[in-house]
Amino acid sequence: MRRAAVLTAGSWGTVFAKVLADAGARVTLFARDRAIADAINGRHVNPRYLADVRLPDLVRATSSPERALREADLVVLAVPSQALRSCLVEWAPLVGPGAVYVSLMKGMEAGSSRRMSEVIAQAAGVGPERIAVVSGPNLAREIAVEHPAATVVASASAATAHAVQAACWTPYLRPYTNADVLGCELGGAVKNVIALAAGMLEGMGFGTNSLASLITRGLAETARLGTALGADPMTFAGLAGLGDLVATCGSPLSRNRSFGEKLGRGMTLDQVLAEQRQVAEGVRSCRPLLALADGLGVSMPITRQVERVLYEGLPPLEAVKDLMSREPGPEYHL
Amino acid sequence: MRRAAVLTAGSWGTVFAKVLADAGARVTLFARDRAIADAINGRHVNPRYLADVRLPDLVRATSSPERALREADLVVLAVPSQALRSCLVEWAPLVGPGAVYVSLMKGMEAGSSRRMSEVIAQAAGVGPERIAVVSGPNLAREIAVEHPAATVVASASAATAHAVQAACWTPYLRPYTNADVLGCELGGAVKNVIALAAGMLEGMGFGTNSLASLITRGLAETARLGTALGADPMTFAGLAGLGDLVATCGSPLSRNRSFGEKLGRGMTLDQVLAEQRQVAEGVRSCRPLLALADGLGVSMPITRQVERVLYEGLPPLEAVKDLMSREPGPEYHL
Repeated sequence: MRRAAVLTAGSWGTVFAKVLADAGARVTLFARDRAIADAINGRHVNPRYLADVRLPDLVRATSSPERALREADLVVLAVPSQALRSCLVEWAPLVGPGAVYVSLMKGMEAGSSRRMSEVIAQAAGVGPERIAVVSGPNLAREIAVEHPAATVVASASAATAHAVQAACWTPYLRPYTNADVLGCELGGAVKNVIALAAGMLEGMGFGTNSLASLITRGLAETARLGTALGADPMTFAGLAGLGDLVATCGSPLSRNRSFGEKLGRGMTLDQVLAEQRQVAEGVRSCRPLLALADGLGVSMPITRQVERVLYEGLPPLEAVKDLMSREPGPEYHL
Repeated sequence: MRRAAVLTAGSWGTVFAKVLADAGARVTLFARDRAIADAINGRHVNPRYLADVRLPDLVRATSSPERALREADLVVLAVPSQALRSCLVEWAPLVGPGAVYVSLMKGMEAGSSRRMSEVIAQAAGVGPERIAVVSGPNLAREIAVEHPAATVVASASAATAHAVQAACWTPYLRPYTNADVLGCELGGAVKNVIALAAGMLEGMGFGTNSLASLITRGLAETARLGTALGADPMTFAGLAGLGDLVATCGSPLSRNRSFGEKLGRGMTLDQVLAEQRQVAEGVRSCRPLLALADGLGVSMPITRQVERVLYEGLPPLEAVKDLMSREPGPEYHL
C-alpha cells in the first residue's frame, strides 16, 4: 500500500490528501495546529478550510513532521512559495532515501526567481527523477466535492510521473503525464499575473470577448517566455497552461482575479492591499517574471501593463488602450 | 478609399460593416429585406439585430446584390454555412476580377464536409490568394459596443492577410495575421461541438475546473484532427482556436452552449429541437467531424460522447463518467 505525507493541511493540501486516499493510499496530513490535526482524526473534517467535506478514513493527521514523513513514499508539498526553502531545511532530513517529492505549489521564489521544483532540488538535495509537479485547473473546493477535473503530473522521469499519476487517479480527477516540468511551473506562475488583468477587465465592465482575447494573448506571452527558457510550447496549450489559466480567470474564487477587479474599479494598489489580508501571488510574481523576460529579450506586453498599473499608477483603461493600439502583427512570433 | 461589400446584414455581418467603416472603408451592406436596408440608410440602425447601435455614416445598405458588389475590393460573406454555395452561384458573377473574398462563417458544408473557404474557392472559382478568413473570440454584441477584442485574419497569401488586417483594425478590434486557413476554420467548426458539451456540464451543475478541463481537452482533440489534416498545431492555441472556444463556452450568449445546457438538464434532442427555433451548428457538425476523424484514425473522445448524447440517448452524466474512466495517458499524443 502506498504511503503519502501531505504538508501542510491548507485548502489544496487537505483536498489532495483526500484524492490520494480515494486513490488507495494511506495518507498522513501534517497540520501545524494540533487542534486541526485532532479534528481531522476525530471528526474527519478540516474545520478551517473544508468543514463540510468528510475526509476518507485513510487520511490521518498529525502535528509532528517526523510522524508525517516516516515511511512516506510520496512527500507532497503544499506550503506558501516563500516558505518552502525554510520548511525543507527542517523536513528533508526526515524524508526516506527513496521518497518522491510532489509539488502542488505555484510561484517563484523571490530574489532567486527559482521555480518550486528547483528549490526542492536544492534545499532537499534530490535529483530531478525524485521530483514531480502537479498543476492544472484544480480549484480545491470543486475537487473536494468531486466535480470532474483533469490535471497534469510533470516529472523529468517518466517512471516517477507514472507513479504519481497512479497515486492520484480517481473517478473525479484525471491526471495526465507530461515531461515538461519547466513549462508546467511557468504556466502556473504567469497565470496569476494574467488573472490580475482578467479581474481588471471585469472591474471595468468588459465582456467575454475581451476576457477570451486576454487569456489567449496572455498564454502567447507565457509561451514566448517559456520557449525562450527551453519549455515545450505545447505545454502551454495544456491543462497546466491554458486549463489553469481559464479556470483562474473565470472563477470568482480566484484571489488574483478578485484583486485585479478592485484595481479595475479604480482602487490603487495600496488601497487593495489595505483591504485584502493576503497578497495575491501575481502581485509578487509580476516583476521577477519581467526581469526574467527582459534578460532574454522576450516581450510580455500584458505583464508589463499589469506592472505599470500596480506600481506606476497607470489607470487600467489606459493600459487596455496601449495594448490595443500597438501595431498588430502575425499571431505567433515565438 | 477602400470599398467593401458585406453580405448579408445579420448580426455579425452588420457589426463587421461597422468595424470596416470605423477602419475607414466605404461599406455597402446587403440586406435581402428592403425595410432593413431603408432603416439602415435612414436611421443608421439595423432594427432586427442591433436596434440600439448606431452604424457609422460610411455604412450604406441596399437590397440589390449588384449594387452591393459593384466596385467592392472586399467581399465579406456572412451567410448560413449551408446557404453559401447557392448564394455564390448568384453573387460571384457580380464580383470584380481583383476583389478579395472574406469569410466570417464557421461551419462545414453538409455532405461534402468542405470548409467555407473551400466552398468559396470552388463556387466562385477563385484562387487561395483571393480568400481570407476572419475568426476569433468575437461575440457580435460585444464588438458592437466596442469592448476590446482581438481576432485573426487568415489567408494563404500574406499580402491578402495584411490588406484585410488593415481593413478591420480599429481601436476596439485588434486583428492578427495567420497563414493557417485550415486550422482557423477547423477551430471554429469544432468549438461548436465542444460548446454543446460545455453547456451540458453547466446543465448538470458542474463548476469551473470541469469547464476548464473540457476546454483544454476539447482543444487537444481539435488539434489532433487539425494536425492530421495538415494544420499548424499552434493555431489551436491562438485566437481562432482557444480564444473562440473560451468565449463561446463561457458566454450565455452562445446558442450552442444554451442548447447543451438543456440536454444537461435532462431534455432529449427532440425536446430541445422542438423548443429552439434555430438548430445549433454543433448539432450539425458533430457527425461530419467524426467521419473525418474516423477516416484519419484520429481519436476525438469528447466529440464522440456528444454524438452519443445527441443521437443515442446517452445520459450526459454517463458520458462524463466514460470520459473520466478511460486510462489516462501522456498529455499530448498528436
